[in-house]
Amino acid sequence: MHKEICIETKQNQEIIDITSQIEKLINITEGTCLVYVPHATAAIMINESYDPNIMIDIIDSLNTLIPQGQWKHDAVDDNGAAHIKAGIIGPSEQIPIINGKLMLGQWQGLMLCDFDGPRKRKIIVVIK
Amino acid sequence: MHKEICIETKQNQEIIDITSQIEKLINITEGTCLVYVPHATAAIMINESYDPNIMIDIIDSLNTLIPQGQWKHDAVDDNGAAHIKAGIIGPSEQIPIINGKLMLGQWQGLMLCDFDGPRKRKIIVVIK
Amino acid sequence: MHKEICIETKQNQEIIDITSQIEKLINITEGTCLVYVPHATAAIMINESYDPNIMIDIIDSLNTLIPQGQWKHDAVDDNGAAHIKAGIIGPSEQIPIINGKLMLGQWQGLMLCDFDGPRKRKIIVVIK
Repeated sequence: MHKEICIETKQNQEIIDITSQIEKLINITEGTCLVYVPHATAAIMINESYDPNIMIDIIDSLNTLIPQGQWKHDAVDDNGAAHIKAGIIGPSEQIPIINGKLMLGQWQGLMLCDFDGPRKRKIIVVIK
Repeated sequence: MHKEICIETKQNQEIIDITSQIEKLINITEGTCLVYVPHATAAIMINESYDPNIMIDIIDSLNTLIPQGQWKHDAVDDNGAAHIKAGIIGPSEQIPIINGKLMLGQWQGLMLCDFDGPRKRKIIVVIK
Repeated sequence: MHKEICIETKQNQEIIDITSQIEKLINITEGTCLVYVPHATAAIMINESYDPNIMIDIIDSLNTLIPQGQWKHDAVDDNGAAHIKAGIIGPSEQIPIINGKLMLGQWQGLMLCDFDGPRKRKIIVVIK
């Protein structure tokens, strides 16, 4: 079974906790949940969401590793760095479902990473 | 159901769009497609394939982050950087299938990354 | 079907080959194996395990890219770098199963990466 949700990001680079929206969709007792973003400048990451500074640290570290403004693709639409970051982090995560619950660890949350916002981002969820 | 395809890379570092070859294999209406490369110096990445400069930007950025020629494993077969890149990008991607189609976004394509070519690379595809 | 294993790491940063422990769990002839670590400062990576220097090279390269001690989250529990590394590498890998065997390549092994050890780490395995 698949479902879709839509997230509207507000900033150029933003990491948003989507855990509660995904948890609501779980309707089987045992299996897996694939969370997939069909965009080439966004990504799905699992990390701690309790301290919001972790999201800032991740954005800062990726900006240091992949600086803006020095890529060949920038000649097209000036978002080369966003594509490289999305390629490294990747567009999906898959989480076990046991006893009807997503098996995220105590300190794990599901995050949408937008590296080229603000935009409306679609997320496809496959539960099976 | 699983299938295999073989890709022959031509350069030492090369990112090749394999989207059309994977799309041809889809033979179910709803599920997932796992694309897996069983090699420790190659990887599967999802990114934009329309502008070929993105592949060059990705290779350039990874070469800057993981420079050649300074790794302990180079003493064995001189490809330490290729192993590190393959470990960071990862050997697989999984894409939802809905209505018989791979749910890649408009700007997403499936890429084989060879970090230690040229070689013949096998790709295993599991559709279910 | 899901199973769990527990790994006790011994060092602050350590990459441990868990291939043989995962292979023992495979009890179907065709499908996939999801290996998932429910911790926000650990990750699962696939790489060569024959030369142990590759694990050292990976730890060294990540330490260079994501230095310790300069992150906002360090004010909480001094492990900001571990969270960033875990987010980049990711908490899971999925491997095809064909003829009752994990389809790891000749030079691929499954690795648990602990970026904030020593700790007891749980690994959830979903085979289906």
